[in-house]
Amino acid sequence: MLKKIAEAMAEAGSIAILPHMAADGDAIGSSLALAIGLSEAGKEVSVFLEEKVPHIYDFLPGLEMARVYDGVETKYDLAVALDCGDIERLGSRKPVFGKAAVTVNIDHHATNTGFAMLDYVDTSCAAVGEIIYELFGQMGADPGKDAAICLYTAIASDTGGFRYSNTTSRTHTIASELLEKGIDVADISRRIFDTVSPGKVRLIGEAVNSLELFEDGRIAVMSVSYEAMRRSGAADEDTDGIINIARNISGVEAAAMIREMENGDIRVNLRSNSYVDVSAVASKYSGGGHMRAAGFTARNSDLETVREMLLEDLRGML
Amino acid sequence: MLKKIAEAMAEAGSIAILPHMAADGDAIGSSLALAIGLSEAGKEVSVFLEEKVPHIYDFLPGLEMARVYDGVETKYDLAVALDCGDIERLGSRKPVFGKAAVTVNIDHHATNTGFAMLDYVDTSCAAVGEIIYELFGQMGADPGKDAAICLYTAIASDTGGFRYSNTTSRTHTIASELLEKGIDVADISRRIFDTVSPGKVRLIGEAVNSLELFEDGRIAVMSVSYEAMRRSGAADEDTDGIINIARNISGVEAAAMIREMENGDIRVNLRSNSYVDVSAVASKYSGGGHMRAAGFTARNSDLETVREMLLEDLRGML
Repeated sequence: MLKKIAEAMAEAGSIAILPHMAADGDAIGSSLALAIGLSEAGKEVSVFLEEKVPHIYDFLPGLEMARVYDGVETKYDLAVALDCGDIERLGSRKPVFGKAAVTVNIDHHATNTGFAMLDYVDTSCAAVGEIIYELFGQMGADPGKDAAICLYTAIASDTGGFRYSNTTSRTHTIASELLEKGIDVADISRRIFDTVSPGKVRLIGEAVNSLELFEDGRIAVMSVSYEAMRRSGAADEDTDGIINIARNISGVEAAAMIREMENGDIRVNLRSNSYVDVSAVASKYSGGGHMRAAGFTARNSDLETVREMLLEDLRGML
Repeated sequence: MLKKIAEAMAEAGSIAILPHMAADGDAIGSSLALAIGLSEAGKEVSVFLEEKVPHIYDFLPGLEMARVYDGVETKYDLAVALDCGDIERLGSRKPVFGKAAVTVNIDHHATNTGFAMLDYVDTSCAAVGEIIYELFGQMGADPGKDAAICLYTAIASDTGGFRYSNTTSRTHTIASELLEKGIDVADISRRIFDTVSPGKVRLIGEAVNSLELFEDGRIAVMSVSYEAMRRSGAADEDTDGIINIARNISGVEAAAMIREMENGDIRVNLRSNSYVDVSAVASKYSGGGHMRAAGFTARNSDLETVREMLLEDLRGML
């Protein structure tokens, strides 16, 4: 099927590339790598995005072929959806896809609905970037340094820098070949992994300040009031991952982050390391999740009450 | 030379493996991988350490062959120093090395002094783990899952999880082959990269609390008093890397961490991202370093004075 897709691309004159909305490193990197490869093969290529590219990806080559979709319905010979589990992930760009003479869907989500004329879904790939690397091979092309930077960014992003369990032997083989192109891994890694906003750093400070350890350091709780959140200047998405600071403390089995929202709701994130089933705690309060990561929202309560309640629950599970 | 070393090991009956003092992930992982390989080849193997293995490496296979050196001078057929730039890095274990019938030195430091009968120094290797992987090949052996866990730990540690500039195409090729052995990269990565002590987390809180941004966020300064350090319960080595929190804030060009030591000295760490030469600032105060990372110690001063002085210097360099 990947060969068929390469052939369809070879026959097309104009190609639209459509990553999923709220595009991440894999979606953006894969799109730009493919754009670079197709452009080098003489195609007229446009990458249409739903929103502006996040600043951390400003360094990626090929961005001159990408723009936020303006709603003008041009007809393309071929449109390819990248990293989209279903067609709704194209948002306002669905008509660009629908009007194309040939539609292609390249993805790695097990839930992919198979919405195109040519579907290629490989769930064994950690990143769509791995599939695009193989597509270069099918197109008889070798990615140059620019495409290699984009593909490395795609693969490193979706594997958490080769640390997540989706990382395979093949992931490293592809990375090995991309490094042959002379890309600067230290620079790319710093850009995609280390950059944080001033607000997030202040929020980390607020969260760490509030850290309490209980039961010989087996339970870690962080509580962030709305006032602390406001003071930090952090955005809502800056709370992502802060619970891991508590979970990663040596000796900690169960970690909770309790956060007061602007409307007074109390949002709770729970993590565990080895044996505590935090989803049982979350479901008690109509929340959800799985054994090691779960959460719930408490209404008509306050930080202190939720904290006490949680502590009692977690103590009972050690 | 690596072939000669493999041959010497094949001829030896008893082998002592000696990683450098204050052994890190590469030194420990390489030592245990080699111990596993030699033990499987029927050798009597001991890994002698200068200190206890840090807790985060408790999961490594082969630890039953390792122990802290007790000063008893046994004579080995062969002793191999791993990851040691010079013989002093063996500390109290120098006699074990000196008394062995054959001495071997396997390292990747450019400064290696070549202190053994058989020296193998490959500075193109990011980690000694890469050399040990090749040594397995020279020994006609294939690392099993246990040795693969140790080698992966060695390589991932010394490359910062494939993020440092020492990471090469070969690094990923070896990682690819190690993953074929069925190792759990998510588990290993979490153990070696994510675990932090409660003291370090509190110290991060103290440092982030003190964070100040100047010149439209281009200068970031963190100041940690001895009292704050004491309050956090952090060890001295816990300060490692905290300066990067300031350096990694988006928009920051120059970052400083100013720390009051127990004796009243003020220790300053400096980092820059693109153009400020922080070594010029450091050398003004008799310190050292390079363009992007430098430091100095101020005596007979205080946090506030050093902070003012530094700010003036850094402002002049933007």
